[in-house]
Amino acid sequence: MQKGNQKFVVQKYGGSSVADAERLQNVATRVTKKVQDGYNVVVVVSAMGKTTDNLIKLAKQVTDQPDAREMDMLLTTGEQVSAALLAMALQAKGIRAKSLNGFQAKIKTTGNFTEAKIQAIDKKKILQLLTSHQVLVVTGFQGIADDDEITTLGRGGSDTSAVALAADLQFPCEIFSDVAGIYTTDPKLFPKAKKVKQITYDEMLELAASGAKVLHSRAVEIAKRFNISIYCGSSFSYEEGSFVVSEDLIIEKSVVSGLTVMDNQTQVIIHELPVDYGIVRKVFEKVATAGLNIDMISIINNNTHLEVSFTIIDEKKKHLESALKKVLEGLPKYRIEYITGFCKVSVVGVGMKSGIGVASDFFTALKNIPFRLVTTSEIKISCLIETEMKQAAVEALAKKFKL
Amino acid sequence: MQKGNQKFVVQKYGGSSVADAERLQNVATRVTKKVQDGYNVVVVVSAMGKTTDNLIKLAKQVTDQPDAREMDMLLTTGEQVSAALLAMALQAKGIRAKSLNGFQAKIKTTGNFTEAKIQAIDKKKILQLLTSHQVLVVTGFQGIADDDEITTLGRGGSDTSAVALAADLQFPCEIFSDVAGIYTTDPKLFPKAKKVKQITYDEMLELAASGAKVLHSRAVEIAKRFNISIYCGSSFSYEEGSFVVSEDLIIEKSVVSGLTVMDNQTQVIIHELPVDYGIVRKVFEKVATAGLNIDMISIINNNTHLEVSFTIIDEKKKHLESALKKVLEGLPKYRIEYITGFCKVSVVGVGMKSGIGVASDFFTALKNIPFRLVTTSEIKISCLIETEMKQAAVEALAKKFKL
Repeated sequence: MQKGNQKFVVQKYGGSSVADAERLQNVATRVTKKVQDGYNVVVVVSAMGKTTDNLIKLAKQVTDQPDAREMDMLLTTGEQVSAALLAMALQAKGIRAKSLNGFQAKIKTTGNFTEAKIQAIDKKKILQLLTSHQVLVVTGFQGIADDDEITTLGRGGSDTSAVALAADLQFPCEIFSDVAGIYTTDPKLFPKAKKVKQITYDEMLELAASGAKVLHSRAVEIAKRFNISIYCGSSFSYEEGSFVVSEDLIIEKSVVSGLTVMDNQTQVIIHELPVDYGIVRKVFEKVATAGLNIDMISIINNNTHLEVSFTIIDEKKKHLESALKKVLEGLPKYRIEYITGFCKVSVVGVGMKSGIGVASDFFTALKNIPFRLVTTSEIKISCLIETEMKQAAVEALAKKFKL
Repeated sequence: MQKGNQKFVVQKYGGSSVADAERLQNVATRVTKKVQDGYNVVVVVSAMGKTTDNLIKLAKQVTDQPDAREMDMLLTTGEQVSAALLAMALQAKGIRAKSLNGFQAKIKTTGNFTEAKIQAIDKKKILQLLTSHQVLVVTGFQGIADDDEITTLGRGGSDTSAVALAADLQFPCEIFSDVAGIYTTDPKLFPKAKKVKQITYDEMLELAASGAKVLHSRAVEIAKRFNISIYCGSSFSYEEGSFVVSEDLIIEKSVVSGLTVMDNQTQVIIHELPVDYGIVRKVFEKVATAGLNIDMISIINNNTHLEVSFTIIDEKKKHLESALKKVLEGLPKYRIEYITGFCKVSVVGVGMKSGIGVASDFFTALKNIPFRLVTTSEIKISCLIETEMKQAAVEALAKKFKL
């Protein structure tokens, strides 16, 4: 982004990138290089390494049920520490730098403690400060609500802070972590996994929802809404990373751009529900208000009754059981079956929309691998398979789609 | 302090009182007792144990010369952590509690980073919050300057925060530490040291300046200016502590109320200065602007030249040498002598003003102990003696003045 002769960028560094003094120095060096390349940089930082975990532990020592507001007061100190230290490190390199916490950067949020949403940012103050400072280091993950209350943005919060700042300032956004970009599939699972150069917002959203951890889906949603390109790269190397961009910026679309795996899946089948979609609606409402994430929903109507099936992560099974009990109580006849030992394998690609035969290729690749459930979206095919078949499925699909 | 049926108090707990989860629980129990006694409590907390030291260490790992503004950003997180945790601990005991950091409590300060002065506090907000909360936990040591800049108050800052809040709200103030009150002399040095029930602001100021660490002199100065009584007690016992009050509240004044010792004193003698008080003024100006604390100043004019003598703590000798060099450079003839190995013993008492023979008793008690320098104020006599005579001097003076 260029304003007059000056170029601007938002960079975000995650917790492992600022875990200790040495890594902070490394980040300071990288930001300094960017300044030498002619940029003014807004840096968004997470808390150092395990800081947040340690603060949560401390709170748990004090009380089993810490108040959400006080948790936010507690946890926001983590980013303030890393922001101040990074500003010091930059100043030691001769950079005009200044740290800002959520209230100083005027990152206005809703009042939902521990899961606030960003409403507005004081662009004026940041642009004003950028006329006298080369770098502003802004605390990620946090903001300020009415009555000067301090809030946090929940999981993936620092990514969200960075993209929201970039959207508001209309700067490009670079997200640095310990992974060198976005891979077609998890390199730990499939060592030949390829890094993508470009990926669309929708593909990234499907990948993030399917278990890819490189970028939080909230951040991708904001980037999509405001049409901000995101660069994802490693803070530990200068290897070229990946761009998340709008579809029309991608010249050559590969049909399938990514493959993800989610482990520890349980299939839940509710047998012999009466043919009453009101009950089905209540089931999904209850599951949603209980905060349970379910996927791969299929409903079969055989005229005499409904059979509802979906997947959930194993550890939420107990929680789900009690939620379902409340909804289904009083029904004359139904039976719930829980089958564990599955994983969910998904392929994602915006090219599927126009690509012919992706589903056919998908099932051809899996020919010897039995699958239990299949669901599709416009740009994704997911199937539920037994965990012991995971490696074989990943290899077969990666080979078939040249990932 | 009573408003309608409600009683109010400010309590301050130092770093060792909130050093870990267990001690935080102990403080929560004490504050809860106060609430059960019918009080609304404004609690001021320091950072937990060694937190501030550890943050300073971290900054030093990043750069030798951390920026003052960024140091304040960094260090203020310490109190925010302990305030949030204490609020949680109180809530777990059923108390309606809320933590406030310097900006939320609107503690307005000057913009001198690392040594800001409190200018105003938003009394309205605190009084308003006290109608719905039994306890407010306010971060000590910090405030907010113009442009939302975060500041710290320097040494003794949390005491200062507590007394300033008490002064502004017109509440009494209780300062809790690991010492059970104010002693006539250091109990480690003289085990028979007595705890005083009451002491005047001026006596406490002299004691604080002479090395007593129980209460910072800035806090005492504010208490004196606004006529706020301060109770000093232990956070680890319910033993009765000491009150710092205005002189007219003390019914029976003892002539000498305290005895203090400052170790590691160097006597500095500048020999053969020309008889030119302009030079002497410059010497003291230079020493003050270099931030060097000197004491026991004596100047002798023997008509042909001046001899200036004073004391300084050993560790500042190098710093003083370079400061003096700059002032005295170019003078035709002078010689500086540094004599180490001394300690300064002081007795303090507001009763000295009217008491007869204190000086005489002082020197009678020290009869076998050679002293090097003596200075007196209206309520204090100090003498410089060799360190090996310290114990004998303390015992002789404590006995003489029944401390």
